[in-house]
Amino acid sequence: MARPPFVGLNVRPADGRRAVALDIVRAVADAVAAGRLPAGCRLPPVRALEHQLGISKNTVQAAYDELAARGLLLARERDGVFVAAPTAEHAPAAPAFHPRRPELAPIGLDTTPVPPGVLSLSTVFIDPALLPIERLQDCFRSVLAQPGLRPFYDPRGHRPLREAIARRLVARGMDVAPDDVLITSGSQQALDLVGRTLARKRVALEDPVYAQARLMFDNHGASVLGLPLDPFAAGVDLDAWERAIAAFRPALLYAITSYQNPTGNSYATHELEAMLAWSERHGVGLLEDDWGSDMLSGSDVRPTLRALGGRDVLYVNSFTKKVLPALRLGFLVAPPELMPTLIAAKRLATLATPPFTEEALCEFLERGYYDTHLAALQAALDRRYHACLAALAELMPPGVRWTTPGGGPTLWLEMPPEVDLARLRAAALARGVHLEASSAQFAGAPHLNGFRVSYAFLTEGDMRRALGVVREALEVSTT
Amino acid sequence: MARPPFVGLNVRPADGRRAVALDIVRAVADAVAAGRLPAGCRLPPVRALEHQLGISKNTVQAAYDELAARGLLLARERDGVFVAAPTAEHAPAAPAFHPRRPELAPIGLDTTPVPPGVLSLSTVFIDPALLPIERLQDCFRSVLAQPGLRPFYDPRGHRPLREAIARRLVARGMDVAPDDVLITSGSQQALDLVGRTLARKRVALEDPVYAQARLMFDNHGASVLGLPLDPFAAGVDLDAWERAIAAFRPALLYAITSYQNPTGNSYATHELEAMLAWSERHGVGLLEDDWGSDMLSGSDVRPTLRALGGRDVLYVNSFTKKVLPALRLGFLVAPPELMPTLIAAKRLATLATPPFTEEALCEFLERGYYDTHLAALQAALDRRYHACLAALAELMPPGVRWTTPGGGPTLWLEMPPEVDLARLRAAALARGVHLEASSAQFAGAPHLNGFRVSYAFLTEGDMRRALGVVREALEVSTT
Repeated sequence: MARPPFVGLNVRPADGRRAVALDIVRAVADAVAAGRLPAGCRLPPVRALEHQLGISKNTVQAAYDELAARGLLLARERDGVFVAAPTAEHAPAAPAFHPRRPELAPIGLDTTPVPPGVLSLSTVFIDPALLPIERLQDCFRSVLAQPGLRPFYDPRGHRPLREAIARRLVARGMDVAPDDVLITSGSQQALDLVGRTLARKRVALEDPVYAQARLMFDNHGASVLGLPLDPFAAGVDLDAWERAIAAFRPALLYAITSYQNPTGNSYATHELEAMLAWSERHGVGLLEDDWGSDMLSGSDVRPTLRALGGRDVLYVNSFTKKVLPALRLGFLVAPPELMPTLIAAKRLATLATPPFTEEALCEFLERGYYDTHLAALQAALDRRYHACLAALAELMPPGVRWTTPGGGPTLWLEMPPEVDLARLRAAALARGVHLEASSAQFAGAPHLNGFRVSYAFLTEGDMRRALGVVREALEVSTT
Repeated sequence: MARPPFVGLNVRPADGRRAVALDIVRAVADAVAAGRLPAGCRLPPVRALEHQLGISKNTVQAAYDELAARGLLLARERDGVFVAAPTAEHAPAAPAFHPRRPELAPIGLDTTPVPPGVLSLSTVFIDPALLPIERLQDCFRSVLAQPGLRPFYDPRGHRPLREAIARRLVARGMDVAPDDVLITSGSQQALDLVGRTLARKRVALEDPVYAQARLMFDNHGASVLGLPLDPFAAGVDLDAWERAIAAFRPALLYAITSYQNPTGNSYATHELEAMLAWSERHGVGLLEDDWGSDMLSGSDVRPTLRALGGRDVLYVNSFTKKVLPALRLGFLVAPPELMPTLIAAKRLATLATPPFTEEALCEFLERGYYDTHLAALQAALDRRYHACLAALAELMPPGVRWTTPGGGPTLWLEMPPEVDLARLRAAALARGVHLEASSAQFAGAPHLNGFRVSYAFLTEGDMRRALGVVREALEVSTT
């Protein structure tokens, strides 16, 4: 381990004469007493102080010896000279200052991690065993070898990556140029850049919805309208949604158009067309979160607002779920007129995303690894999806329902109204299975009584085991 | 280059019979006419459609041939089958929808890049030739080899990195535990996390100040008080600042305590103690931006608010300037009581910083590369700093003044009041030297008439050349 850096010592005899050992002793003893040099600080090496003060090595050493003898310093072989832990005799004075902490506004996000060894039934992540880690490592190695680490960055993101993304989107029916693409730290940052720059902070979104999108809009002071989404109904109540939008007059409608998080809902084309018509009629901007349209279900690519509605639709997607969550790369597609503001917002937030990871992802796309990976992933997830449906049919008692999204990583498992979800969660956790608390996903009081089931994350065996635990937990939680 | 992905085709005869070639022809022709399949879309390969529809390869091929004959499709050898560019005859219908764009609030940040080949006299970056790119690449290679890419992340940042940072800060007299450290995407994200969570959005800051900090607080809707900083005065007018703070009652005082950006100002210990006293007396929180205290001037480590004032001071620092701007890693140190809110804010902003880069930086610190690098960097920058002072003394006419920060990457070059900065900038740019427009650095009308001079970025030769251009430009810009 490297030696720690050392503190600076201000040893300047008041009358301008050259320092003697006693000046050093006094400077250190005073600084320790005033709390300016807490225990563990490393003092300058003898040679450094010798050079700084223009005095002999012996003078400095004599001062340090005196301080060590007084119990204030501690020399550690090879490591350097450190301020000793205070004894009763040399306890530092109480700190001279008690500055006040600034007050922060709390964010209603539970950041407690899932305990190790517990099966996570509600995560939206894909099983890392299904992710292309080796091939991605090859791409990182290749970029390290050539061109190597670049010192600077383009705040919009590595241009060849933006070109590769635009080509993919054009091939899927969207009108997108490379300069319409802004690389972001996952889709989360893409959403945040829109949330923080929105001129009129009134947002309509699905209820329930991805909790960290709803909390992000809250955090930026937006008023939020929840559009009730019942994943067990035959589609959305379009008239009710339009009336709510006409009354609330949001500046933005945020929608997850395929395999919605958390319900698994996908919109039919006529529902997307209704949203486009509302945008025209009521002046509401559209922000489409398309995390899912290329997940699962190989031959079927789902429709998108951006493809149906053209360049004024803001569009967000990400590589993190499908390639590697730790990669932290996604993107925002926006009309050219909005791009300067969004680039400036990215600079205020993080300045840039690391170009090294952008280049490695670009290599991954251009080698064709992403398409090969998606095809294999879709086949693997289809198997897990159908195994999950079979396990649910076998294990769940009457009254429990689930959605059948046909794609994406999760479905919604709905408990009968008499089940107390908090008790169910506690009983499942006691048996080694974590169910997410979902209240932050709802705009108001939850109108559903369930949670996500992650068939993309758990193996078929773990899924059966976890659902078996839910079954047991149900038996002890029904009031 | 990889072949682009293909769109999905929905070919379902209404009566449930098996599709024939004409169904495919109609489905494609209708989709093209409705604008759902714009030019350049790739259609499913014959084999994919054969499999999807359960029909023969010949049927699909016959349909594609018919569509190609009608001028709607284009087969490209090895690449696949694509929608052709529209002719007058087959021009798609006008898009059915005209969705509205959301309105974004502009951010007053100039994002125009410096033209290539132009010398950048005002950047705060360090010359990449002085950065440890090779050693950092070694660390990335080492992490790729072992442990490799991790799929997930700790939203607080890689724990061994937080431990290494805490050890370094403790050795510099600060009371910091690893869990008090939150890794961020550069110091910009650290500041942004505080700005976005501040409960009462009233902030005092230096005038002039780092423009992207001031604009960030603006972007979060904060009212901002500028505390006038005259880098040519003998210290700050402490009484005037305290009166302004008492009247404005900010929730937060943001201060760059060493080698301030943009003036080069460093506070004396008694000025820092005054800030700590104001924090106590007026209830204002302190956010210290310490980008500079370990830059330059080897033997002297500057005092910090955090070391003098203890755990309630929020403290920000970064590795990006000193190691590699493209690394995008910095950190925020905060009291434990505030940490859950700051972690949640980071999750809303970007979820996490990439653990791969965190691990490589940790390796860089633990191998001792950072300390070796800082020592060499300090020596190199000291030489450039003194060469810059010598060139200024030689080249600048009477009436031009400059600060002598003694460290950090930049000084402030102040023009006489009669110089029109806009004309000076234009004249310098015409001669190949870029001077930053500094108005965004000021809280109101600028009370200085100058710009940063970046001795850390330019070589001694380029610096002389750039200052020679400023001299020439001055002669044509004085009104």
